Amino acid sequence: MIMAIITAKDKLLSKNDQYALANRDIFDRHCLWCLNLIGAPGSGKTSLIERTVDCFSGKLNIGVLVGDLDTENDARRIAGHGVPVRQIITGGTCHLNAKTIGEFLPHFDLERLEVLIIENVGNLVCPASYYLGEHDRVTLVSTPEGDDKPLKYPGAMHTSDVLLITKLDLVPYTDFSLDRARKNALKIESSLLVMAISAKTGEGLEAWKDWFESHAREKKSQNKP
Amino acid sequence: MIMAIITAKDKLLSKNDQYALANRDIFDRHCLWCLNLIGAPGSGKTSLIERTVDCFSGKLNIGVLVGDLDTENDARRIAGHGVPVRQIITGGTCHLNAKTIGEFLPHFDLERLEVLIIENVGNLVCPASYYLGEHDRVTLVSTPEGDDKPLKYPGAMHTSDVLLITKLDLVPYTDFSLDRARKNALKIESSLLVMAISAKTGEGLEAWKDWFESHAREKKSQNKP
Repeated sequence: MIMAIITAKDKLLSKNDQYALANRDIFDRHCLWCLNLIGAPGSGKTSLIERTVDCFSGKLNIGVLVGDLDTENDARRIAGHGVPVRQIITGGTCHLNAKTIGEFLPHFDLERLEVLIIENVGNLVCPASYYLGEHDRVTLVSTPEGDDKPLKYPGAMHTSDVLLITKLDLVPYTDFSLDRARKNALKIESSLLVMAISAKTGEGLEAWKDWFESHAREKKSQNKP
Repeated sequence: MIMAIITAKDKLLSKNDQYALANRDIFDRHCLWCLNLIGAPGSGKTSLIERTVDCFSGKLNIGVLVGDLDTENDARRIAGHGVPVRQIITGGTCHLNAKTIGEFLPHFDLERLEVLIIENVGNLVCPASYYLGEHDRVTLVSTPEGDDKPLKYPGAMHTSDVLLITKLDLVPYTDFSLDRARKNALKIESSLLVMAISAKTGEGLEAWKDWFESHAREKKSQNKP
């Protein structure tokens, strides 16, 4: 009877969701915290990863999976910070999918890894529809994009745990209002945690680090089997 | 025999391309120049349209079709400049398609219109794969997005006539190099015309206006039947 129920449930899941749950199972068995970063081209995903891995150098074992339509530039940039990185070139596909993530997991030493950061393809639309098995999802919106963006991209807001406003250093040169952006985001999704940083000046980085570390430590404390 | 060839060719065309050719036929019959603007969220598409319609106020009859996942904000902004505007809310779909464009054309006075600007959904990936029947395609990349973006989004470069670098006013506050961006773009697609503007300061706007006007006048000179 239970088997029958599970089968019916499985049929309701999309193929992608089935692969995502398999990834999630692998992450959980290894007490590995997985984070999926979503944002438009140039929203600051790679810079955020660079700052984050530098902050936790020697403290947390972080690995990075980078998705791009083309080029290995981002993987090269991140590898320069001394963490294991793999680049997924999607060849025109507008998002990462759970099956591909699963295929790349054996490239990492999962016994050793404590955090896996996935940098999704630069696109604020399609990646929001594909669960990859991550524990947390962070959507980045940079200040030059405008404070109306949370209203215009509701899918990313609804499926994210954190909205991270980036490039705070550019606020003086744009008409971006942090207050309006926050209000717009919470109007769409009241459960969102809204943070704001500048990877350039370091403003707001402490709060981001605290959030990141507490989530990584919580997962790690579940003790690897 | 000719019929057979046409039928075989039609079968090779995607459904979208068939609708796109029907749109193109409507544009050509009305000597109406159609422009498709593609760019990431916040790349400056709406600001460009505002500046452009202001430049040609009383000189060219311009209409605008705006695509967004949600909100009518952009259409409201543009309507404030005294041109006919229609908003297409895609409800989560990441691009505009030719069939939808065709459905919205009867909302415009095509006998009077000389230019139709389509503002695509904010997304540098998916809209590049959908021909809408436009005569020219312009892809916008804003300076805060980074000068590597032409390399990372080759689809948009390959299918565009113009790469328009926007937000030149922010160059002093970023590490964007116009020279690198141009080289990267031409490496991907040597036929691209690369222009650069700031909708805020007006820098580069003259060259854009000249390009825009010459294309609109050329189409208009074909005389409405």
